[in-house]
Amino acid sequence: MKITFSFGLALLSTTLLAQSPDSAAIRRLFSETLTNGKSYEWLRQITKQVGPRLSGSTGAQKAVDWARQTMEKEGFDRVFLQEVMVPHWERGPREEAYIRTGKRKLTVPIAALGGSVATPPKGIEAGVVEVKNFKELEALGADKIKGKIVFYNRPMDPTKLNTFEAYGGAVDQRANGATFAAKLGAVGAIVRSMTTAQDDNPHTGGMRYGVGVPLIPTAAISTNGADALSRLLREDPNLTFYFKQNCQSLPDAKSYNVVGEIKGSEKPDEIIVVGGHLDSWDLAEGAHDDGAGCVQSIEVLRMMKALGIRPKRTIRAVMFMNEENGLRGGIGYADYAKKNNEKHIAAVESDNGGFTPRGFGVVGTSEQKAKVAQWKNLLAPYGLHEIGPGGGGADIGPLAQSGTVLFGFKPDSQRYFDYHHTAIDRFEAVNKRELDLGAASMAAIVYLVDQYGL
Amino acid sequence: MKITFSFGLALLSTTLLAQSPDSAAIRRLFSETLTNGKSYEWLRQITKQVGPRLSGSTGAQKAVDWARQTMEKEGFDRVFLQEVMVPHWERGPREEAYIRTGKRKLTVPIAALGGSVATPPKGIEAGVVEVKNFKELEALGADKIKGKIVFYNRPMDPTKLNTFEAYGGAVDQRANGATFAAKLGAVGAIVRSMTTAQDDNPHTGGMRYGVGVPLIPTAAISTNGADALSRLLREDPNLTFYFKQNCQSLPDAKSYNVVGEIKGSEKPDEIIVVGGHLDSWDLAEGAHDDGAGCVQSIEVLRMMKALGIRPKRTIRAVMFMNEENGLRGGIGYADYAKKNNEKHIAAVESDNGGFTPRGFGVVGTSEQKAKVAQWKNLLAPYGLHEIGPGGGGADIGPLAQSGTVLFGFKPDSQRYFDYHHTAIDRFEAVNKRELDLGAASMAAIVYLVDQYGL
Repeated sequence: MKITFSFGLALLSTTLLAQSPDSAAIRRLFSETLTNGKSYEWLRQITKQVGPRLSGSTGAQKAVDWARQTMEKEGFDRVFLQEVMVPHWERGPREEAYIRTGKRKLTVPIAALGGSVATPPKGIEAGVVEVKNFKELEALGADKIKGKIVFYNRPMDPTKLNTFEAYGGAVDQRANGATFAAKLGAVGAIVRSMTTAQDDNPHTGGMRYGVGVPLIPTAAISTNGADALSRLLREDPNLTFYFKQNCQSLPDAKSYNVVGEIKGSEKPDEIIVVGGHLDSWDLAEGAHDDGAGCVQSIEVLRMMKALGIRPKRTIRAVMFMNEENGLRGGIGYADYAKKNNEKHIAAVESDNGGFTPRGFGVVGTSEQKAKVAQWKNLLAPYGLHEIGPGGGGADIGPLAQSGTVLFGFKPDSQRYFDYHHTAIDRFEAVNKRELDLGAASMAAIVYLVDQYGL
Repeated sequence: MKITFSFGLALLSTTLLAQSPDSAAIRRLFSETLTNGKSYEWLRQITKQVGPRLSGSTGAQKAVDWARQTMEKEGFDRVFLQEVMVPHWERGPREEAYIRTGKRKLTVPIAALGGSVATPPKGIEAGVVEVKNFKELEALGADKIKGKIVFYNRPMDPTKLNTFEAYGGAVDQRANGATFAAKLGAVGAIVRSMTTAQDDNPHTGGMRYGVGVPLIPTAAISTNGADALSRLLREDPNLTFYFKQNCQSLPDAKSYNVVGEIKGSEKPDEIIVVGGHLDSWDLAEGAHDDGAGCVQSIEVLRMMKALGIRPKRTIRAVMFMNEENGLRGGIGYADYAKKNNEKHIAAVESDNGGFTPRGFGVVGTSEQKAKVAQWKNLLAPYGLHEIGPGGGGADIGPLAQSGTVLFGFKPDSQRYFDYHHTAIDRFEAVNKRELDLGAASMAAIVYLVDQYGL
């Protein structure tokens, strides 16, 4: 781009549209956060000062303290904790892994999957069987799998426009790969990292063991590592793979959801939740997943206060604990709501990264969706074109059964799985404006739901 | 995000829509580039092997050779050069600058603006007058400006959703600041960098001197540097600013547009251009500006060949020279077209960065725009929601006067001015999928124009 260009006039659209009280209010929310927003500074704190915060860790407790103190400092009407018991899994010392072919050993980057058992202290070394899916695995049968390490190597489909769809099409390997392999006598399972990027970062993530099958150790391998293993297997089908991991599951630990609230002026008993999850995988700072969602949620309440918007209904920023490996916070929050007879009319979650906004997935009745669809013209000037398709969010999911309408914030998905569950999901991977725009988008939905109900 | 989520079904929309021949063709273009695309590898070459390539430099000549050879290797029907004479400005050794207040010297990062004269060899040191705009400057008058350095410090407006609009509202300071300051007797002009980011990178860019005014040296200062200067000026209005720059303008140099072509099968005389500009500022690798547009343009032709799409009309990938400081390539291309009686029905330019696609600005008659608007449903599944508002592109602009319809590719604008004209506009700042999606978006427009004309 150079000095002179012809963009000027046509781009005034957002200004020209700012006519109705609603569009003016939404305009004010966006301007407030783009000018005075605190999301980015808070994200710096939760990533750099708190850091990794897997459920049960001291990092998670620091995160609880940070969230409570941050919201208290903002002077919200009420800040409180909700106790939940959470799984406590620890990685221990970093993993080791190599491919042995002939006299050569090629070291490859792996990361134990969350929930996996350790290898024996000396590690495991065995032959490798590569498969693309469970059907292929079962066609091979126990004879060919027994005593081997199963290597799941089906990539995320790069042709899916929305990378979450590609993720959904591949993540069964990570979640259930160990179980299917163990049923046929495998001694370990190695899974290609869930990413469309080609690099050396292993992507951890949750897995679970089926009932009654042997608990075999399982890890993610980087995409470069997976490609190397696959290539070397073609050259030498008898190569062996060695890996050693040191993780363990400890007894459940006490932890908390952290909630901040602005009391409604007209219908204080009707609650609108805006939230993200406070826990993150242990490999990194958890910037996009989900520091972003936490700080955006606090920012929604901050900007309402800053602009003197007194909501009719009660607005809550909820930082859920344990989304990554248990969902105890989300389930617990819905349980508390039921026990206390709270009426949650809507819940907004940001857990798809701090990227530029695209829209919201809406989960509700067709009447409710039709009502939301009427707001499309108010949201389109902010790049929020995709209103409707998509889901809500894991943590707010349990609220749906009591009739809460769910809004899942949909930022652009292209870069998310470059960072997801890896060591590079850092503060530096988040752009300030993109983060701010997400907060303002969530505030716009909260504002509209508060104004008009559902 | 965790293992289980409810996105699945709703996200199948892009697949379900793939029914008509046009939507199937567009689907194939996206899948081809997301699977086999070469844009990213080419971008690595033009940034890492060619590097900075300001008009008249040896880098620019290397870029011409690279573009020609790359398209020849792809076996396009014809690859040719168009000679143009271009300005030749050189920065020379890096600039030096500091603020002197009392006994303290604070070094600040600056970069001479393209086209500026040098300071005397020993540099310039003078008092500073800070202004926000030309009106303020003129209200101060020659008495207060004479012998001083004028410091333009109006930031880009962060509340503009589209950052190009914010750029358009601030860039007059960079383009004309030296002229307005020199008219009142200033000895230099320092301009706040054109960015919404807060950092230490000075952003260079084009400037021009008005006729008959003294040629005073002018440079951009980083936003952190600008904030420091402004703060220190409040504390000590008598501080001085020192800067030294070593740039010079040399005689115009011979250079080239580089053109690759696939001949049309039915209407070879009707030409559709897809292009970007080959030159870049000297401070960095020119990844987003505009390596991205160049490699995307070549990729459009590559994927048509790869998919066996034989266009009805002639498709040209044009790498324009000298967009940054002269536009001689864009003007020259239109001149050649006129001289050769070529009929250009449409031109698509990518010069807003290799970011995730949002849409296209369309410049044409209202009938032509209405025809393009009919394609909206074919483009929306790919995140291309903003079809219509916006401009075309600087290089293709000169074609408009002969009735060519212009399409300016509009990627998401949030991150563009973090990198624009700075040392950090590097290969690493570009995401592969975002770059690929841009190429496919451009190919979709070329495909539709080729099918249906305008």
